[in-house]
Amino acid sequence: MRDFSKGHEWLSINTATVRKQLGAEVPLDRIIDQCAERGIRAISPWRDQVAAVGLDPIAAQLKAHGIGLSGYCRGGFFPAPDAAGLKAALDDNRRAIDEAKTLNAPCLVLVVGALPGALDGKAAYKDLGRARHEVRDGIAATLDYAREVGMPLAIEPLHPMQAADRACINTLEQALDLCDELDAQKTGALGVALDIYHVWWDPKLQQQIVRAGQERLLAYHVCDWLTPTRDLLSDRGMMGDGVVELKKIRGWIEATGFAGFSEVEIFSNLDWWQRPGAETLDVCISRHKTAV
Amino acid sequence: MRDFSKGHEWLSINTATVRKQLGAEVPLDRIIDQCAERGIRAISPWRDQVAAVGLDPIAAQLKAHGIGLSGYCRGGFFPAPDAAGLKAALDDNRRAIDEAKTLNAPCLVLVVGALPGALDGKAAYKDLGRARHEVRDGIAATLDYAREVGMPLAIEPLHPMQAADRACINTLEQALDLCDELDAQKTGALGVALDIYHVWWDPKLQQQIVRAGQERLLAYHVCDWLTPTRDLLSDRGMMGDGVVELKKIRGWIEATGFAGFSEVEIFSNLDWWQRPGAETLDVCISRHKTAV
Repeated sequence: MRDFSKGHEWLSINTATVRKQLGAEVPLDRIIDQCAERGIRAISPWRDQVAAVGLDPIAAQLKAHGIGLSGYCRGGFFPAPDAAGLKAALDDNRRAIDEAKTLNAPCLVLVVGALPGALDGKAAYKDLGRARHEVRDGIAATLDYAREVGMPLAIEPLHPMQAADRACINTLEQALDLCDELDAQKTGALGVALDIYHVWWDPKLQQQIVRAGQERLLAYHVCDWLTPTRDLLSDRGMMGDGVVELKKIRGWIEATGFAGFSEVEIFSNLDWWQRPGAETLDVCISRHKTAV
Repeated sequence: MRDFSKGHEWLSINTATVRKQLGAEVPLDRIIDQCAERGIRAISPWRDQVAAVGLDPIAAQLKAHGIGLSGYCRGGFFPAPDAAGLKAALDDNRRAIDEAKTLNAPCLVLVVGALPGALDGKAAYKDLGRARHEVRDGIAATLDYAREVGMPLAIEPLHPMQAADRACINTLEQALDLCDELDAQKTGALGVALDIYHVWWDPKLQQQIVRAGQERLLAYHVCDWLTPTRDLLSDRGMMGDGVVELKKIRGWIEATGFAGFSEVEIFSNLDWWQRPGAETLDVCISRHKTAV
């Protein structure tokens, strides 16, 4: 297992972690500068943050700083109530792949979607099995283009508490079943983004990490589970502030041969997003040394 | 599949559903009267509610009204940071079994516990694997006494969002694995309480319901999953107000031969607990006919 205590060369910052600073939205170019100032070698930006500044300027800025990506957030949201919606999702995922290529991302992270409309409290249908079929078909169709241009797709299983509105793939086992169905040869075109926040509770986690192996583990995200958790989406904890055995799980992951970045992704409207970005990033660096 | 549309003979009320009415705690004897007035044939009361009125008076009142139990809430909370705590949990579960016998419950529901202290935000340890071992050992020890007096134990898998603080058994598969380990002969002494709120998201739900079969399905709870869900514990929805396919899942359950009560258990500090109990119970009855 790698020793993280001496430096932060394997730290990546998911830019959602500092998208708000002191309660206000901060543009991605500023966030990249803040990361560069601290010698952070990788980030994982979100599409809306990139679009707000511009794809080419962001690509140029990253190149100038020598900052790479640990992933690109995000494709997915495949289910829809009608054919036009399904088609629109495929088109959008194609654009996400193109952006990921421009940014030289190692993978496009897929938050696959769930009951269409549920995110706005108006589910168009309740059939979770249908949503899962639409996700399967959406990934299969997107995979054709992803293979063509060489952009790996990383399915991110989301916590079951987000099964209705954000992602109906909710365990690593389920994600790997889908990978095996659509990419039986383990070509590297399809794998998983394993965010510990979503899967730490799973009694089959270690077994399924072994099953995934290095070929399927395309990205690895960390934060912590707080007790109490006050919000289903944005009350994630800084590493070390919660109850997750982060080092034990990283041991399982690295035992597969995984040697990539550990990407810090903290949605925290109640705490970290209310602090200065400099403080949040500095604490990310120090906790990455002691708690990850 | 049974036709629930004509009456509510298979409706049970988990008394947590109306433990608060218009925002104030209501004693269990009053709740029982409210159920009796509506021809409700079964309830599932909580230990603290029973204790506040007295075990014998509650037993007598239920007998006088001809109301039975669909389960008794609850035993469990086995993990502890030290030997004295583990012993205290076993003693408490023995008392819970005795109370369940006095009330003639068909089973004692087990909310098994998780990281000790996490419910108060102060986890004594973070090793979820250790908690799961302590749960296994706790159920094994409790099962000896439960068999002796003839009180089935029903393990309730809780939603993964409650894995840290309330129950580290989080899927039906995991609960059934434990049942198979501790009661391989399917004697009827050990099974599961299947609360749809906790398991509706599970991609293996139907498969594991088939696996459970009638022998393991000791209790069946319903409510609904709201979008958005504003609180991890007490923002459950009335049946029909959320996104769960309740009839489809009841179909899977009854296909095993299950023919018991469907027990309505709604924790709703933000909505139903603020209404008059009469209204909540009347809506439970009508939704049981249309949405369950």
